[in-house]
Amino acid sequence: MKVSALLTSAGINIGLCILLWFLYSILRKQPGNVCVYFGRRLAQGHIGFENPICFERLFPSTSWIMKAWATSEEEILAVGGLDAVVFLRILVFSIRIFSIAAVICLLLVLPLNYFGQEMIHKQIPSESLDVFTIANVKEGSRWLWAHCLALYIISFSACLLLYFEYRSIAKLRLTHITKSSPNPSHFTILVRSIPWSAEESYSDSVKKFFMNYHASSYLSHQMVYRSGTIQKLMDDAEKMYKKLAELKNTAANQMCEPSLVRCGLCGEMTNSFKLLTNEAESVHDKEKPVLDQLKSDLKEKESAAAFVFFKTRYAAIVASHVLQSSNPMLWVTDLAPGPHDVYWSNLWTPYRQLWIRKIATLVAATVFMFLFLIPVTFVQGLSQLDQLQQMLPFLKGLLKKKFVDEVVTGYLPSVILMLFLLSVPPMMMLFSAIEGNISRSGRKRSACCKVLYFTIWNVFFVNVLSGSAISQIIAISSPKDIPTQLAKVVPRQFLNVYVTKYESGGQFWPIAHNTTIFSLVLSQIIAIGVFGLKRSPIASGFTFPLVIFTLLFNEYCRQRFQPIFKSYSAQDLIEMDRQDEASGRMEEIYKLLLSAYCQFSTASTAIFKTQDSVRSDGSHDSEDVKSGLSYPTLCSLLYQEFDK
Amino acid sequence: MKVSALLTSAGINIGLCILLWFLYSILRKQPGNVCVYFGRRLAQGHIGFENPICFERLFPSTSWIMKAWATSEEEILAVGGLDAVVFLRILVFSIRIFSIAAVICLLLVLPLNYFGQEMIHKQIPSESLDVFTIANVKEGSRWLWAHCLALYIISFSACLLLYFEYRSIAKLRLTHITKSSPNPSHFTILVRSIPWSAEESYSDSVKKFFMNYHASSYLSHQMVYRSGTIQKLMDDAEKMYKKLAELKNTAANQMCEPSLVRCGLCGEMTNSFKLLTNEAESVHDKEKPVLDQLKSDLKEKESAAAFVFFKTRYAAIVASHVLQSSNPMLWVTDLAPGPHDVYWSNLWTPYRQLWIRKIATLVAATVFMFLFLIPVTFVQGLSQLDQLQQMLPFLKGLLKKKFVDEVVTGYLPSVILMLFLLSVPPMMMLFSAIEGNISRSGRKRSACCKVLYFTIWNVFFVNVLSGSAISQIIAISSPKDIPTQLAKVVPRQFLNVYVTKYESGGQFWPIAHNTTIFSLVLSQIIAIGVFGLKRSPIASGFTFPLVIFTLLFNEYCRQRFQPIFKSYSAQDLIEMDRQDEASGRMEEIYKLLLSAYCQFSTASTAIFKTQDSVRSDGSHDSEDVKSGLSYPTLCSLLYQEFDK
Repeated sequence: MKVSALLTSAGINIGLCILLWFLYSILRKQPGNVCVYFGRRLAQGHIGFENPICFERLFPSTSWIMKAWATSEEEILAVGGLDAVVFLRILVFSIRIFSIAAVICLLLVLPLNYFGQEMIHKQIPSESLDVFTIANVKEGSRWLWAHCLALYIISFSACLLLYFEYRSIAKLRLTHITKSSPNPSHFTILVRSIPWSAEESYSDSVKKFFMNYHASSYLSHQMVYRSGTIQKLMDDAEKMYKKLAELKNTAANQMCEPSLVRCGLCGEMTNSFKLLTNEAESVHDKEKPVLDQLKSDLKEKESAAAFVFFKTRYAAIVASHVLQSSNPMLWVTDLAPGPHDVYWSNLWTPYRQLWIRKIATLVAATVFMFLFLIPVTFVQGLSQLDQLQQMLPFLKGLLKKKFVDEVVTGYLPSVILMLFLLSVPPMMMLFSAIEGNISRSGRKRSACCKVLYFTIWNVFFVNVLSGSAISQIIAISSPKDIPTQLAKVVPRQFLNVYVTKYESGGQFWPIAHNTTIFSLVLSQIIAIGVFGLKRSPIASGFTFPLVIFTLLFNEYCRQRFQPIFKSYSAQDLIEMDRQDEASGRMEEIYKLLLSAYCQFSTASTAIFKTQDSVRSDGSHDSEDVKSGLSYPTLCSLLYQEFDK
Repeated sequence: MKVSALLTSAGINIGLCILLWFLYSILRKQPGNVCVYFGRRLAQGHIGFENPICFERLFPSTSWIMKAWATSEEEILAVGGLDAVVFLRILVFSIRIFSIAAVICLLLVLPLNYFGQEMIHKQIPSESLDVFTIANVKEGSRWLWAHCLALYIISFSACLLLYFEYRSIAKLRLTHITKSSPNPSHFTILVRSIPWSAEESYSDSVKKFFMNYHASSYLSHQMVYRSGTIQKLMDDAEKMYKKLAELKNTAANQMCEPSLVRCGLCGEMTNSFKLLTNEAESVHDKEKPVLDQLKSDLKEKESAAAFVFFKTRYAAIVASHVLQSSNPMLWVTDLAPGPHDVYWSNLWTPYRQLWIRKIATLVAATVFMFLFLIPVTFVQGLSQLDQLQQMLPFLKGLLKKKFVDEVVTGYLPSVILMLFLLSVPPMMMLFSAIEGNISRSGRKRSACCKVLYFTIWNVFFVNVLSGSAISQIIAISSPKDIPTQLAKVVPRQFLNVYVTKYESGGQFWPIAHNTTIFSLVLSQIIAIGVFGLKRSPIASGFTFPLVIFTLLFNEYCRQRFQPIFKSYSAQDLIEMDRQDEASGRMEEIYKLLLSAYCQFSTASTAIFKTQDSVRSDGSHDSEDVKSGLSYPTLCSLLYQEFDK
């Protein structure tokens, strides 16, 4: 590949960027696109529909760039959450380290490579790229120490930047945990693999177990129901509601005290709330067969998983950390994901299957990784000029033109690879879903790692190592674009467009950190090999300590910061609990908890809308109460029956 | 190597065994050796010194074998603890699986190998060993399916045996935990990396932290002191005691109420016990400078580690599992090892050093593994006949004799390897000590694993792979002697001789399990290779599922049983706590706790003996109390001062 081909490729990319920039700049000003570009603000009601017809709309402007640039981290944190900040930090970190590498390579490494051998240089545009690589340096050259020095500078600055980023993101995460509004997931654990017993329902088992072993801290629980069958159940309930409503129009009027509104099917209180008066119970007796039917239906649909709510955050974390039963495959506890982060369809996966699923997806992903090579190498082979000419002779004339040649050799292979790579993330997301992750963020993190391994394998090992290693290492920093790859994978779900549904609290950072370390060590090892080939044992020898230093640095960060991203500390949680208790907010939080995890939010919301108007603050319209049994009350009724 | 050489080697080994057997049988009957062979029973006072002079003493007998054979598992469990049972189980398991392998290989594989090619056989003793290996089977032979079948039978029976062993040992472990007498380590955690503060001592920090965050369950704590300097401190205390004793002969007489005797330096109660009356405090005032001196001495010697005692087992396990501080390098908690299992000198190792120490020992052990090859290959090379003859020409005549030839080629290499291997366990124990393990059993487990890796590397990869792989695989089951290797490494800690000082509760079993699985998979992979070389793709193909099955089986066991060996379950601990609370034994356990972990047991016992006679039940002789300040009381005094 010649320099001019590289420049053509770069030129096309830059041109495309500017074009997209222009398009975005114009399109965002069109009123019709407001719901596309300002979805989030729209949802929050921060934007009005002004529609002035002016020419300014048709020209690109740069003010939004300034605005985006001027947005402070606090603003992003407030608007997009910690994940958005971490995502930006990853980008900024990548830009910083690339700038450092670029400066050093352009000023120090590139001239050395260019004048590495005594030779007559052509004009730079028609010069082969090889002249700028380390391949052009003489064997045993003394100038190789400069490459070694460049590697040292890049590695040290990367480690330094990583350390400060890790420290500050860890601090942000701690603040995020302690200072944010009460998070239901802090009070909740997910119990899976509840043992089945013929005598009692899963719900009863959960209640009995936690009342027995965690009596002082157990608040209530909520079963997870097997889906699919659920819709049918909801329909049944709806029908029955209509029947009951007709029958007990007046009776229900007196007996309802809807102090707590919940979706009904979800959640159960330990101290069953007495909504019923004695008369109501007598009404019950008449309808017992119908209720019994629904009761047994409900019992059948229970899966062996439940959310268990605790009175304090500390109690929840304790229950999630300690092995509950002497059979480790029973009563498996984990801290629950955030309510919007729950990946419901995986919750009723039998826990016993999970380890097999994990192994199976690992195998499948590996097989996919290898199979992926077949089409890529086939299509990439096509982009070789002579082969193309052989297969499609009519292109011969076209391919002889210089510009087309440059596009085909310089740009096409990477475009083909990128297009194929586009199929990878959805595939890995599928694998991660099958794997059994209980949260959306967990699923995405897992997919993210899989895509990373895939990229490393494909881009570096296959593409780089299949060609001759040296000729491909244009600058030492080439593997460092992994963080950028990562940045592409990380959901973009933040300032104007997306409403952040869930928040992983910056848990993507350790992945970025590890990937950067991997890239550093990989480039250092490649450098050792290259120095060896260039017969410079001193440069090789000097690079060894750098590898060791980098690995030790990584280990230190793993010890010092990683646990913060994996768990919460007792100290923090206890302090938070105390503050909430002191301020009397706990009761409020408990109420919030009972309605936080709603498995059938869509279905029940639909029913709410058609049959019952519930105010957003959860209280009923008084007219509805008068008009008959409301849907949530029906479910509460059922629950009480069920609870007996 | 010929069959006769193998038989000679086996003959020598069997002969040595019988000789040692005879020797043991006779020596154990000599009264002078009672303290060697019956040390444990002697210590327990179960044996008397009878000294009848009779001829029976001079002849070997077999009754002890019968006795050893007849000992039931319950008896061993009662006498030697769970570790002894697990050790025996490992041996029995090895014998079982070897028997199965031997039967199958002798009846099925060996004849097939022997008649694997059409050839004229010599007499069996002068036949080369190669004739009995798979190397003798024709390429593409149909009989290779028999080898495959043998592998299937051996693998399945090994997995089946492993499963039943794992299940029953897990059950034993659970019984051991729940049914044994109260164990101080269940109530105790070890806190390391206590943050240093200029204002308060480590002890004060611990008290403040646990009183703040674990107020309801915190019982008391006990600092760990830096050693070396300790002896000096003890001497100082001794001197001071003498001075004080002279001064306050009568005053002390009235003020002492020795309700609890502890070693003094160790342990501190939350509700400082008031030993002093008002008069005593006035005496104190006079001696304040001296006490202040010792107080500051004591504060200086504190390390950043402490044992913290809790009121319930559950509270202890919770505190040990949950991240305590938002800085994961501070307030690091672990469940404490048993009192006799504590490896004191590692407790005051700064926690921040540990990860570096771990990496350093890992590197050192790896380097040792490679360096070890040099002397072994050198000396093993010597045992090659022709080389020996070249180097030591005067041996030529001797080496030509058939028997000597057989000994040198069949027996010497393995003896040399064994002798060199003897140096490995002490070396690995040293590495494991440097690594920073906090318990003796943990140190031994770590050394055990290191020795295993070492053995696998040396015996299999270097010895087997450096020769031609096929010629060395005498039977497929060769790598299966790893469990026996393991059994050799596991301390022999049990029926008559050793007093079991600590009990890991069968934690050696998972190591044995993993090693067996490793050996199985290794032999299966080697078999795949051999089948491939023998051009039997069907046999190769059929072995693949076996590898996958074995790995899946291992993963299942890891999921199902391993957590039991790593932690205790909340259910069990809470039940145990409840039983003890119901039976009113808790107070007793608390008293036990305060004296359980004594860092200076030897030193303080010595002082106890010379200066103070303390009854075994912990109360003082009344005369001693009258004669002056007792040593423990002095320390309690100090503590009270210190506690203010």
